[in-house]
Amino acid sequence: MFISFEGTEGVGKSTLIKRVHDHFLEKNKEIILTREPGGTALAEKVRNLLLQVDETETMCADTELLLIYAARSQHLNQVILPALKEGKVVLSDRFTDASFAYQVKGRGLSQQKLELLNETFVPKMPDITFWLDAPIEVGMSRARARGELDRFEKEKLSFFSKVREGYAYLYEKHPKRIYKIDATCSEAEVFQQVLDILNAF
Amino acid sequence: MFISFEGTEGVGKSTLIKRVHDHFLEKNKEIILTREPGGTALAEKVRNLLLQVDETETMCADTELLLIYAARSQHLNQVILPALKEGKVVLSDRFTDASFAYQVKGRGLSQQKLELLNETFVPKMPDITFWLDAPIEVGMSRARARGELDRFEKEKLSFFSKVREGYAYLYEKHPKRIYKIDATCSEAEVFQQVLDILNAF
Ligand SMILES: Nc1ncnc2c1ncn2[C@@H]1O[C@H](COP(=O)(O)OP(=O)(O)O)[C@@H](O)[C@H]1O
Ligand SMILES: Nc1ncnc2c1ncn2[C@@H]1O[C@H](COP(=O)(O)OP(=O)(O)O)[C@@H](O)[C@H]1O
Ligand SMILES: [Mg+2]
Ligand SMILES: [Mg+2]
Repeated sequence: MFISFEGTEGVGKSTLIKRVHDHFLEKNKEIILTREPGGTALAEKVRNLLLQVDETETMCADTELLLIYAARSQHLNQVILPALKEGKVVLSDRFTDASFAYQVKGRGLSQQKLELLNETFVPKMPDITFWLDAPIEVGMSRARARGELDRFEKEKLSFFSKVREGYAYLYEKHPKRIYKIDATCSEAEVFQQVLDILNAF
Repeated sequence: MFISFEGTEGVGKSTLIKRVHDHFLEKNKEIILTREPGGTALAEKVRNLLLQVDETETMCADTELLLIYAARSQHLNQVILPALKEGKVVLSDRFTDASFAYQVKGRGLSQQKLELLNETFVPKMPDITFWLDAPIEVGMSRARARGELDRFEKEKLSFFSKVREGYAYLYEKHPKRIYKIDATCSEAEVFQQVLDILNAF
């Protein structure tokens, strides 16, 4: 079982996924927690390039997309696919939906470009995706309280609105895979929503 | 005019391209010398990831390919295309042919994968390509004399034979664009071969 967690900045993905991980570990489930971009030492180096704020050079949208897919291909082949093969549950903090929301809807890259990369380099999609949804301001104020903002977090609100619309579009399009979670609630309530869905599974 | 220089390790690409660059600078031509993977600060960071020897994690062939195209897209959009637009001559130490020779022929990735990336992310191909050809052993002994070997240079001879065959295949396929240069000669003679071709142009 492959489960991804999605949503805009600061909605609570990393907080939630840790709770879910701990919960299943306590039940002695074989489970791993990983994240994108990243998930291997090399992919984390690519993540650093992606999140670093560099005033001297603008990263092109194509470059951003290709770096994300380079990290993803490493993560898939070295971590996700082997873990699934061993029967483990894989929890990933973001996956391909984020590329649609951020790079296609946010940056304005063509959907065809993304589909082409998915078809060519992503042999496995999540079985369930939890989309943590909250108004942009809610997530941004949480993210700001958390610490210094990275290259994505420094984007304008209009960018994040497009990203959120991207997730809404995917949710409409994949109602069987994607579950929408009200992320404005407390941490405990968000966790409970997810647990109820997983238990029903 | 966009000119690329190709060939296996140590055949003399970087030595030659510097001579060509100096020659045209002396003639007051607007010319830039650049290289792949690399060519911008960000793309050079990606180059470091590609060339670094890391005993703890194997880089997947897909990851390698996507990192190269991430660097290429940055290089194209930030350096090559703007320079060509300004009417400059661009000399690049390697370009897409290297991806065919190394990633497709050397690593065994599908040609279709590469063509797809080229069609989607590479809007401009070189006008002329100089393929510096020499037996693998010649280049490798030059590369070894030059210093410590990088992740590619540490590959087996059988890998480089496939890479060389890849270049030979491209040369057959693109006889108008690709010029084969005998790289076993002296530096001065290699330069003269190239100069004769450029002067005829
Ligand atoms: N449901 C919640 N209510 C209030 N604060 C939350 C909630 N979930 C997470 N937080 C806090 O908001 C900040 C961002 O959460 P985080 O899990 O890092 O978000 P994300 O991974 O989606 O960017 C953290 O400081 C976290 O403690
Ligand atoms: N034609 C040549 N004959 C002999 N040695 C050469 C020649 N061209 C380059 N070299 C030397 O071989 C080494 C590799 O050359 P380099 O230009 O770095 O190759 P490449 O860029 O193709 O890997 C360098 O030490 C260089 O001085
Ligand atoms: Mg997070
Ligand atoms: Mg060189």
